[in-house]
Amino acid sequence: MKFEGNHILSVSQFDRESISRILEISTLMAPYAMRKKRCHVLDGAILSNLFFEPSTRTRVSFGTAFNLLGGFVRETVGQENSSLSKGESLFDTARVISGYSDVIAMRHPTMHSVADFAKGSSVPVINGGDGANEHPTQALLDLFTIQSEMARYDMGLDGLNIVLMGDLKHGRTVHSLSKLISLYNNIKVTMIAPTALQMPDSVVSTLTDAGHEVVITDKIEGNLACDVIYQTRIQQERFASKDEADLYRGHFSLNRKIYQQYCHEHTVIMHPLPRDSRAEANELDIDLNDLDNLAIFRQAQNGVLVRMALFALSLGVESRLSHYEKPVTWYTNKY
Amino acid sequence: MKFEGNHILSVSQFDRESISRILEISTLMAPYAMRKKRCHVLDGAILSNLFFEPSTRTRVSFGTAFNLLGGFVRETVGQENSSLSKGESLFDTARVISGYSDVIAMRHPTMHSVADFAKGSSVPVINGGDGANEHPTQALLDLFTIQSEMARYDMGLDGLNIVLMGDLKHGRTVHSLSKLISLYNNIKVTMIAPTALQMPDSVVSTLTDAGHEVVITDKIEGNLACDVIYQTRIQQERFASKDEADLYRGHFSLNRKIYQQYCHEHTVIMHPLPRDSRAEANELDIDLNDLDNLAIFRQAQNGVLVRMALFALSLGVESRLSHYEKPVTWYTNKY
Amino acid sequence: MKFEGNHILSVSQFDRESISRILEISTLMAPYAMRKKRCHVLDGAILSNLFFEPSTRTRVSFGTAFNLLGGFVRETVGQENSSLSKGESLFDTARVISGYSDVIAMRHPTMHSVADFAKGSSVPVINGGDGANEHPTQALLDLFTIQSEMARYDMGLDGLNIVLMGDLKHGRTVHSLSKLISLYNNIKVTMIAPTALQMPDSVVSTLTDAGHEVVITDKIEGNLACDVIYQTRIQQERFASKDEADLYRGHFSLNRKIYQQYCHEHTVIMHPLPRDSRAEANELDIDLNDLDNLAIFRQAQNGVLVRMALFALSLGVESRLSHYEKPVTWYTNKY
Repeated sequence: MKFEGNHILSVSQFDRESISRILEISTLMAPYAMRKKRCHVLDGAILSNLFFEPSTRTRVSFGTAFNLLGGFVRETVGQENSSLSKGESLFDTARVISGYSDVIAMRHPTMHSVADFAKGSSVPVINGGDGANEHPTQALLDLFTIQSEMARYDMGLDGLNIVLMGDLKHGRTVHSLSKLISLYNNIKVTMIAPTALQMPDSVVSTLTDAGHEVVITDKIEGNLACDVIYQTRIQQERFASKDEADLYRGHFSLNRKIYQQYCHEHTVIMHPLPRDSRAEANELDIDLNDLDNLAIFRQAQNGVLVRMALFALSLGVESRLSHYEKPVTWYTNKY
Repeated sequence: MKFEGNHILSVSQFDRESISRILEISTLMAPYAMRKKRCHVLDGAILSNLFFEPSTRTRVSFGTAFNLLGGFVRETVGQENSSLSKGESLFDTARVISGYSDVIAMRHPTMHSVADFAKGSSVPVINGGDGANEHPTQALLDLFTIQSEMARYDMGLDGLNIVLMGDLKHGRTVHSLSKLISLYNNIKVTMIAPTALQMPDSVVSTLTDAGHEVVITDKIEGNLACDVIYQTRIQQERFASKDEADLYRGHFSLNRKIYQQYCHEHTVIMHPLPRDSRAEANELDIDLNDLDNLAIFRQAQNGVLVRMALFALSLGVESRLSHYEKPVTWYTNKY
Repeated sequence: MKFEGNHILSVSQFDRESISRILEISTLMAPYAMRKKRCHVLDGAILSNLFFEPSTRTRVSFGTAFNLLGGFVRETVGQENSSLSKGESLFDTARVISGYSDVIAMRHPTMHSVADFAKGSSVPVINGGDGANEHPTQALLDLFTIQSEMARYDMGLDGLNIVLMGDLKHGRTVHSLSKLISLYNNIKVTMIAPTALQMPDSVVSTLTDAGHEVVITDKIEGNLACDVIYQTRIQQERFASKDEADLYRGHFSLNRKIYQQYCHEHTVIMHPLPRDSRAEANELDIDLNDLDNLAIFRQAQNGVLVRMALFALSLGVESRLSHYEKPVTWYTNKY
């Protein structure tokens, strides 16, 4: 796909070549995100960061990415947007706000609202999550993380053996990620979830139709010998009773002991965060915190790189980065 | 009036000469707002954008305008301001915040509060709306829009034939705009509203005392053959019953059919936005969206130009803009 | 102490030498805060301004300080932070947000939460207030203000004769300030408060153990002949009845008449702000507003200088300021 001037609304709009381009440009962003160099390629540009549904992590990550390219961020958070409550259409809001902006990142609680908004926008719109529908930048940062973690073991995305675990029914991150990895070759996906929370058939079909191996199970024993475990949250409110939820949670917690018993030495652990650290949830025990293969914080950091790449591609400056570099002259321990 | 170092609190403070100056500088801002060039004349300056009453559109427009001149924006939104709730006076708040800032834009729900605040401020304060009282930057952007739309037909502000329509009693935008156009020559103003929502006498007098023609009516038929229609919202809650409101709304909706039946070919449609797009309101039908004379989105965009001009004038940098210009090197389709 | 790369969590971490260093660098910041020059030493750096408990004044002051050094500010305000409500630990939040940032300023309603957060942060964290515990930047700006006000009378911090007044039991600012001044020589502290609201013994001991003179009283008569009066708010809700509160308030209000009757000609009045200007409180009467020794607004402004100094020291750029200077070319009346 052509990126310059275009929206990023769904993982469905990407083919393998366009994803490779995003991952390649994301890699170029590491020196800036890790404060080895500063970049001013978007000095004077304005991002409108529209979070009609609050999300600290994603919002700050988008804003940080734009600042790291040198641009300004104008931000709107939550239900402040009285214009929509006065009956203004998303189309009108988009026409107005895009008139102020060079690019827009938007989260909204309603499915497909970001695509509706994009129809009225005169500038590229990046979907930061539209309800239960899509969160494409999360899927891209997950894929980027898998690629960079696997590279440490001289492996790539083709041939990946991945476990998706937890609430696979409601988690849009595992849906979108499944669609993206289906574009690669010889993937094995093991889906570990209570039956009631297993992956929707449509997502499974995306993988099997592309010729990949899918294992569906509700047991972790014997199923964790993989390259990557992608853990998600078990949400108690989705179960009939707390007792039932606790039962499942007992089975789907990951800790150091389980890791050592069932995983490969190179198995990487991912999680979209936040992880629930309360004792009754404990999906990823803090005794894993000093495990080098716990990639969850590198994964969060990669969100900045991928969002920088998407801004650079949408605004057509990905080939001009090095013209605007300067050294970093303040304290940093990021690298 | 002298702009440098002074507040912008009310349309009453302007004479025709000072308005001409604002409109002239606003025109100079178009290349930056349309991303033909970048400007860094306020690089390092700080705007405090104080929106004690939320307003996404106006707030983002002020912030964008300041960023486009190169400056930073520190923002406060809504009732967060616990200092006021702890009994702090507006004077004290102003003394403190102005100590941090180079200029302040402020919206507040209470009439005259911005002027009270300005008494304590050591830096210029721009009124972004103080309750039912004033919203001078809206009036200025409306006037700028009329001038630039009329220029496309080789017309100016003198001799303007304008229709104000909708809720003329409560709409502060039509009050302030009436005061501004009263400064020009040979104006005809047709005020179309239900009798209960007609323009206050004091505003009518401002126009008639200056020798202008005013027509007061509750009918659109035969009254739309004008240069500019300024439509506003009919707010149901102001009527005795929903039925009565619906009756009025039926009469005061504008759509393509009415436009073609009653308007000149050059008649420009304006609206302060947001427009209510719900079926029962529909003050400006979306079938007008592809009408070239529908100026409502250019009008919103002009808000950025006018606010850039006011910042530049208040801070005395309007003659230095071109010293700080750089090309724009990213994707844009704004011009 | 070594500042570069380290957190600022408590006044207890400073010795006299490190405080001198902070005050010295704060003084260097005056030309930038007063808009005599611009500074770009942190151009491209990112502050995460995390205010989980809202505070307009402190938040804007931190953000302004960072902008004045040339850096960008990404901001989070209030209970938006749904991650914490989903059970995320402060450690995890810190790991993620610090991955986006060069430095973090944080306020949180829970005691010791900022220190807990700092354990997970990979970048320096500055405590902007953690409940009833600490607010070290306030204590430092208070000390800086005393030093600079005393300098006008050729006096220093050693030998200071200071009155602390109001609610000394609950006010964390007077606790922290007492700890800091205990590091200097020959201090006299007069603590004027109703018995029920007197200074905690532990704070008194800090001063007496260091050999300073402490006078504890509930009368202002005869006790205001000092160098500095540090007034705080009397909060009605802490008393048995409104009548009792009013009684105390009558005794602890400061106005022009009391000032002239009991104070030295050089006595400086300070207050952490906001002051309660309602008639029933009136802890500092507005008839003091044109008194040159009313330092409260200079004190607020000094918060910017001190926070600039802490950012510069934490990021190790305090010796590089002048390499990034430019003239200010817009209107200012700050000096």
